[in-house]
Amino acid sequence: MTTRVEIWTDINCPFCYLGKARFDQALAGFEHRAEVEVVHRSFELDPGLPADASGPVIAHIAAKYGISVEQAAANERGIAAQAAQLGLPYQTSGRDFGNSFDMHRLLHFAHEQGNQDRLVDALYAANFAEPAPIFADTERLVAVAVAAGLDETAVRAVLDDPNAYADAVRQDERAASQLGATGVPFFVFDDKYAVSGAQPTEVFTQALTTAWNDRPAPVVLAADEDTCGPDGCAI
Amino acid sequence: MTTRVEIWTDINCPFCYLGKARFDQALAGFEHRAEVEVVHRSFELDPGLPADASGPVIAHIAAKYGISVEQAAANERGIAAQAAQLGLPYQTSGRDFGNSFDMHRLLHFAHEQGNQDRLVDALYAANFAEPAPIFADTERLVAVAVAAGLDETAVRAVLDDPNAYADAVRQDERAASQLGATGVPFFVFDDKYAVSGAQPTEVFTQALTTAWNDRPAPVVLAADEDTCGPDGCAI
Repeated sequence: MTTRVEIWTDINCPFCYLGKARFDQALAGFEHRAEVEVVHRSFELDPGLPADASGPVIAHIAAKYGISVEQAAANERGIAAQAAQLGLPYQTSGRDFGNSFDMHRLLHFAHEQGNQDRLVDALYAANFAEPAPIFADTERLVAVAVAAGLDETAVRAVLDDPNAYADAVRQDERAASQLGATGVPFFVFDDKYAVSGAQPTEVFTQALTTAWNDRPAPVVLAADEDTCGPDGCAI
Repeated sequence: MTTRVEIWTDINCPFCYLGKARFDQALAGFEHRAEVEVVHRSFELDPGLPADASGPVIAHIAAKYGISVEQAAANERGIAAQAAQLGLPYQTSGRDFGNSFDMHRLLHFAHEQGNQDRLVDALYAANFAEPAPIFADTERLVAVAVAAGLDETAVRAVLDDPNAYADAVRQDERAASQLGATGVPFFVFDDKYAVSGAQPTEVFTQALTTAWNDRPAPVVLAADEDTCGPDGCAI
């Protein structure tokens, strides 16, 4: 029996970037890592943004939350310092903001293709580590997705059809709401344990261990009719 | 929160073929089917067979289990009658037997590609509904996999490397053993409920409903530090 970890996340979210790196550290050191399945779930921090909105994040954050540009810049520096402790690149000149719905649709497609984790990392890198904007730029999004191993024609088909995987994104967001998640990153282990926030690596190690040790034997609802076993099929 | 169904199965197993059809019927009529994830797991009925062994199954079963050829043929006819009730094609002239390890390796690759369910159906059809042998015939296996939507070069690469996905197959088999499954099909719902055998469709409907209604709220192990929400990132 495997353990499944669902991670609600947004590409806009710096603590999701840090949290994934810490979770990945915990997973890399976890004895049963080969039997842990990770699924990334959608959570839009700012779903009301127009699809073509984009620009430097510091001025946007300052205006949106009513803080000074200096305070917003200081917050970014604080996050950059935490990223540096993890060895994660984080651009100090200021990342961009924008609507992430198309990225979430693409992450659902990537999940079907077995490439979701790689695309999450590529989108984080494009947003947090590289100066070129990733929001409201379809060509750059396509380039990042293709570099993460996805087929270009298929990626364009997903992006060109606004309904593709749109319900899947909204379903993830409804599930987050039902779980009481008001922010991200939000980690759920085997539907049984939750961790909210970019917690220290040890917290994720503990959560993996707790979930692993608590995989109960399933209750048998119906058994023993019409099976095949090493001694043949019961007829 | 989704519900996950894991189905241990072997392509050699006629009750797995029937059981999947009944499960699929239950799933098609289940209100929350869009939030049900299905994963096929490996279980070899006859792992000791040489990779190149193949031949008509009736004589093989009769010899292996010490029953008469007439009894083995009657068993096949009994299964064919059950298949007919489900509208499933089942060849009456006798299917073949063989080692299924390569098929299981390919099913793990197909899972990564998002094509696993389609490949399971294609392999069942090739084995139970079509007269050409599917065992010990790499070219036919490639053709079936490609017809199920997989890339031919990638399929050949998996089949040419005996280690590709071999550990994943064995891990599924260890998990089945730990769960106490001695035969297939064996269905596990959210790690909590199990159904053994090609049970009637209503049993699967009941199991889906039970698992769905019993999705508990997760226990929060750690919360509220370093998250981003609609009102910004907590610093």
